[in-house]
Amino acid sequence: MPNKSRFLRVPVEPFVVEAGLGADEVLARMERVSFQGRSLATARRIWEKMLADDCTIFLGVAGALSAGGMRLIIAHLLEHRYVDCLVSTGANLYHDLHETRGRRHFVGSPRENDAVLQAERIDRVYDTYASEEEFCENDEWIAEFVLTLERRSYTSREFLYRLGEHLWQTTGRDGILTAAYRAGVPIFCPAISDSSIGMGVSQARHRDASAGHIDVIGDIIESANLVIRHPRTASVVLGGGTPKNFINQASVQAEFYDDRVGGHRYAIQIVTDVPHFGGASGSSLEEAQSWGKLAADAEQVTVHGDATLALPILASALASSAGEVLAARQPLPFDLAGSEMAVGGRPVSHARFEARQ
Amino acid sequence: MPNKSRFLRVPVEPFVVEAGLGADEVLARMERVSFQGRSLATARRIWEKMLADDCTIFLGVAGALSAGGMRLIIAHLLEHRYVDCLVSTGANLYHDLHETRGRRHFVGSPRENDAVLQAERIDRVYDTYASEEEFCENDEWIAEFVLTLERRSYTSREFLYRLGEHLWQTTGRDGILTAAYRAGVPIFCPAISDSSIGMGVSQARHRDASAGHIDVIGDIIESANLVIRHPRTASVVLGGGTPKNFINQASVQAEFYDDRVGGHRYAIQIVTDVPHFGGASGSSLEEAQSWGKLAADAEQVTVHGDATLALPILASALASSAGEVLAARQPLPFDLAGSEMAVGGRPVSHARFEARQ
Amino acid sequence: MPNKSRFLRVPVEPFVVEAGLGADEVLARMERVSFQGRSLATARRIWEKMLADDCTIFLGVAGALSAGGMRLIIAHLLEHRYVDCLVSTGANLYHDLHETRGRRHFVGSPRENDAVLQAERIDRVYDTYASEEEFCENDEWIAEFVLTLERRSYTSREFLYRLGEHLWQTTGRDGILTAAYRAGVPIFCPAISDSSIGMGVSQARHRDASAGHIDVIGDIIESANLVIRHPRTASVVLGGGTPKNFINQASVQAEFYDDRVGGHRYAIQIVTDVPHFGGASGSSLEEAQSWGKLAADAEQVTVHGDATLALPILASALASSAGEVLAARQPLPFDLAGSEMAVGGRPVSHARFEARQ
Amino acid sequence: MPNKSRFLRVPVEPFVVEAGLGADEVLARMERVSFQGRSLATARRIWEKMLADDCTIFLGVAGALSAGGMRLIIAHLLEHRYVDCLVSTGANLYHDLHETRGRRHFVGSPRENDAVLQAERIDRVYDTYASEEEFCENDEWIAEFVLTLERRSYTSREFLYRLGEHLWQTTGRDGILTAAYRAGVPIFCPAISDSSIGMGVSQARHRDASAGHIDVIGDIIESANLVIRHPRTASVVLGGGTPKNFINQASVQAEFYDDRVGGHRYAIQIVTDVPHFGGASGSSLEEAQSWGKLAADAEQVTVHGDATLALPILASALASSAGEVLAARQPLPFDLAGSEMAVGGRPVSHARFEARQ
Repeated sequence: MPNKSRFLRVPVEPFVVEAGLGADEVLARMERVSFQGRSLATARRIWEKMLADDCTIFLGVAGALSAGGMRLIIAHLLEHRYVDCLVSTGANLYHDLHETRGRRHFVGSPRENDAVLQAERIDRVYDTYASEEEFCENDEWIAEFVLTLERRSYTSREFLYRLGEHLWQTTGRDGILTAAYRAGVPIFCPAISDSSIGMGVSQARHRDASAGHIDVIGDIIESANLVIRHPRTASVVLGGGTPKNFINQASVQAEFYDDRVGGHRYAIQIVTDVPHFGGASGSSLEEAQSWGKLAADAEQVTVHGDATLALPILASALASSAGEVLAARQPLPFDLAGSEMAVGGRPVSHARFEARQ
Repeated sequence: MPNKSRFLRVPVEPFVVEAGLGADEVLARMERVSFQGRSLATARRIWEKMLADDCTIFLGVAGALSAGGMRLIIAHLLEHRYVDCLVSTGANLYHDLHETRGRRHFVGSPRENDAVLQAERIDRVYDTYASEEEFCENDEWIAEFVLTLERRSYTSREFLYRLGEHLWQTTGRDGILTAAYRAGVPIFCPAISDSSIGMGVSQARHRDASAGHIDVIGDIIESANLVIRHPRTASVVLGGGTPKNFINQASVQAEFYDDRVGGHRYAIQIVTDVPHFGGASGSSLEEAQSWGKLAADAEQVTVHGDATLALPILASALASSAGEVLAARQPLPFDLAGSEMAVGGRPVSHARFEARQ
Repeated sequence: MPNKSRFLRVPVEPFVVEAGLGADEVLARMERVSFQGRSLATARRIWEKMLADDCTIFLGVAGALSAGGMRLIIAHLLEHRYVDCLVSTGANLYHDLHETRGRRHFVGSPRENDAVLQAERIDRVYDTYASEEEFCENDEWIAEFVLTLERRSYTSREFLYRLGEHLWQTTGRDGILTAAYRAGVPIFCPAISDSSIGMGVSQARHRDASAGHIDVIGDIIESANLVIRHPRTASVVLGGGTPKNFINQASVQAEFYDDRVGGHRYAIQIVTDVPHFGGASGSSLEEAQSWGKLAADAEQVTVHGDATLALPILASALASSAGEVLAARQPLPFDLAGSEMAVGGRPVSHARFEARQ
Repeated sequence: MPNKSRFLRVPVEPFVVEAGLGADEVLARMERVSFQGRSLATARRIWEKMLADDCTIFLGVAGALSAGGMRLIIAHLLEHRYVDCLVSTGANLYHDLHETRGRRHFVGSPRENDAVLQAERIDRVYDTYASEEEFCENDEWIAEFVLTLERRSYTSREFLYRLGEHLWQTTGRDGILTAAYRAGVPIFCPAISDSSIGMGVSQARHRDASAGHIDVIGDIIESANLVIRHPRTASVVLGGGTPKNFINQASVQAEFYDDRVGGHRYAIQIVTDVPHFGGASGSSLEEAQSWGKLAADAEQVTVHGDATLALPILASALASSAGEVLAARQPLPFDLAGSEMAVGGRPVSHARFEARQ
């Protein structure tokens, strides 16, 4: 019985279970199922296309991914240049620093008595615990690092580069900050003051009023200039929050100064929030198109699900399938050592937009 | 730095990406991450414990899992006796029948113009399409099958067994209904009248008023008797809806007649709904303990996520890791051919509860 | 500054707070805000249009609305004929019966220790408690009522009418079942076997095998015939589950036999589930249009929120604003006393669809 | 039949519908229903207790509340000192500025074709539209305002005070920024660089490299000092995001320097996100207790729902019921005119924490 409707062309293929399947094959068999299973499989294919295309890939990470065991996946994505620029909440960088410094997060329960935890100074993140004492000690460690820096203003990008450098030099351990430092991947943290990283910086200021000046407005200019320089961009966002918006804002702000910028060409978001309450975290990629954050013909997919469930599978599958395209990729050569960063030797201002002539 | 707190014993282990990992290993590495990733990994271990223990495992399936490409996973779970009894919505059985009869569901888009789809008689399930014409034809096929049956009342369990038998004899194809028939696994469909299966049955009644009598009250008694007979039970629920509640109700009703029944010993639910709106679909497994649906010391886990994303990985991992425990398992030997089913030769009434003497 | 874009015609009007506002006025001021606030205000206007139009209004109620304090709102909607036909889960009818019989649900906490509750035989529904003992006693009360009935098959519609009658005669108290009985509003309960109502019926069967036969297939035919008789229909759905689908199924099944049926003309749903996991509970009203469950030009709105929050305001506002249109309304005159119901004196079969000649 | 269980003391009271009920009475009748309806009613009572107690009340606003028609409610809460300090996303302040400047947001549809909107330069926020051209013009207006300021660093608090002042002087219109200016309520915007406010500031920097320096680290110190000065605090949070965390962080950072600080004494959150994905936006108030963000014995409630639905009712009810307690309240007298703010004449440093002696 032939189906002539143009809507009935590609049949759903039921997933067939087999022992010994690789993550790669599991995801391949999910490409023709439905709903969020299909979305995750599509995300892999779109990411591979980003890698094969000559574009700058932004990665946004919100939520408690570092505390939740995802930090070495993110480090892996930076190290192997699956992405070119990280935008993160402060919390993810702080919890990364915590573990890179040799501390741990612990398996806990979402139903523990929180008054008891408070009394024992255990901080809970859903089903995960950490020691408040160790957190306080981190804050002081950050403050002391800040006091070693020259007394001037730092973009969050420069500050985090130096923090990663210091962490690497003192620990030699793998993590997000250290991997970004070593791979030369810039990190922006637009809401740094809303995190324990910022708290640590403020404790340096407490000791010396001329210390701890972060230039978050410079971050806006620098990130937009990155887009102006290479207007072909892509975005991978885990969770919503400030990273999601900041990556889109860079594109919108860049377009204001240079109309060759036309929104991201590819977009993947793995998100648990929903569009119908109007918040940016849950906003759809279609909505992003109205703003020009995303090109009208972009390849895009939203995966509605928890990143701690989706990302391990997605990253494992990519590790198997994206080797070739990754080897052929020529990622942007950043120089992050100065107050002004550079791409391929050309400086990127944080004081002035590179407006089109 | 030793942590003496009893809350800080088991550290989170960050997931390490590697090429070539099997689904099995991916899930193993997720056991010490956090949030829903950890929950999915825990679900695998609890399911293995169910299989190793001598208990009757109920599987509940709601949502549009068959249309969404999950039906051969469910068939696989029945065939290999990962579970002993299926409770399903009518929709999942109907969409299974549709494909077993050689029709297909199709890859679509959630953003298509639905007025256009209506005009072309394409039925949409989020991102998946089907032909309304083919659905109408299924309904008539079901009606014709019903008219071949003896004119008496059938529990949904008996009716679905006969439907599976007829499907197998006429198609020889794999699917949920045919796998259940061949593996001798009972299927209950408590809301059969709220589905296209029920619509097909009603079309038989239209032609002959003495046809199409389904005894859903008999289902209550039969399912509770299964629990009374083997009070050690476990529950795996995909989605919420009537299957989730019916599996719990069987336990509660059984306990009313026999106080040796003490709730499920193990429970897994993969669910997207949440507890705080009070509905049964999203209710927590803790709440189920207050009712005695679940033993107070049961091993249990809730995975908050879409089954189309979680189930392929979970089933693939189990296929690799559960072989041995599955081989050693001695599942309940059901005889489903009669109006009264039997377990190990002993009939199970659908008219009278097996009250404890 | 005139905006010429056709998209920028109706400005958002910020809500202005004032002391002494009626629910009516609050909702009126929400009509030009955004997101779910606007949706709720729109729901009121659409409901008023339903009432002003000559259409049959179906109300679907899922979730734990009766236990949650909403049962007298639903009773009010039936009594004043804001709606013409109720489709309910068994739970909502059972918890209604519990209170109509003089028992209570109790204010509790979602964080109580469920093992303690189990030991004290307290059943928890999120933040609400009930006595398991009283529930068991209800089940027996239902069983005894069933044993007073003639030994034949009953549609859920007829059975619930008789149950409401018995409740009214023995208690004289207001509630869903008693209001439906008194107002002559039919109630369908497609998943009656998946509820404590069904459990009570099964306990009658246990005592007398010829008792407790519910004809849920007859419900399909009767509900579709209601639509065929008056093809102009509307749907108000609180939650998803079987009521939502059954109301839509009635329309689809009716259209199969009579092509003058073209889907609901108006639709309101207040729902917490979301579309992107593919389940029917969260499915969008647009999706319903592809199936023809909803007319392509229907006026419709989805309110994403908890009914216990939205319904009290919506019903209070309607009570103030819909008086006139309600007074002018001529609701369908049902006669529910027989095995076959009648509308305006003309019987409605539950054995045969009223196919168009 | 007396219920002796301690769990069965306070019965649920079904909501009784009546014409002419005020928002106040509707909420009063919702106090003994269940689920989120009860939560909203509880939120009103807790807010009244905050007002009657001598505590500093922080209000956090995330999401797109200003675009969504909630800005005059927030202005009302500031003007009448239902709260003492606002923490906001940049977007809410920007959309407020947009309307205070006489522009509008527009009623739209979530299903419009976004490529068409992009072509017409219409920006969509779910079901609401705005003109991109007007947004660009706002950004320039902000840049010009920034260029009028002295060339030094400004905390977001000082900057927003001056922006409110300028807006009031140039427009004389009511809104969040102008109400805060007039009522002397400080506003913090920790993620100012992640918003169009920040984009406007960056455009000033583009013209003059010495302009547009925002000291977000100073905000951390200033906000913590507010808590140290008056350690009895309360928190009302709409949505999650940076405002929610920043309000909690102020308490945690304050406690680091002064152990008399013991977490908020009262907390209300109206939130659509959920705890089980581990993100801070959805985190429970219980979890906040483990961190000491909230006192272990705090009165607290979470309302799971959209603020555009819940806030109009809550604010309307409070306007009716809280008049007396509000009149008796003696809110903190802030002086916001200087680079250093003051409370009751005593300056509050943004360079040094007020550590306990």
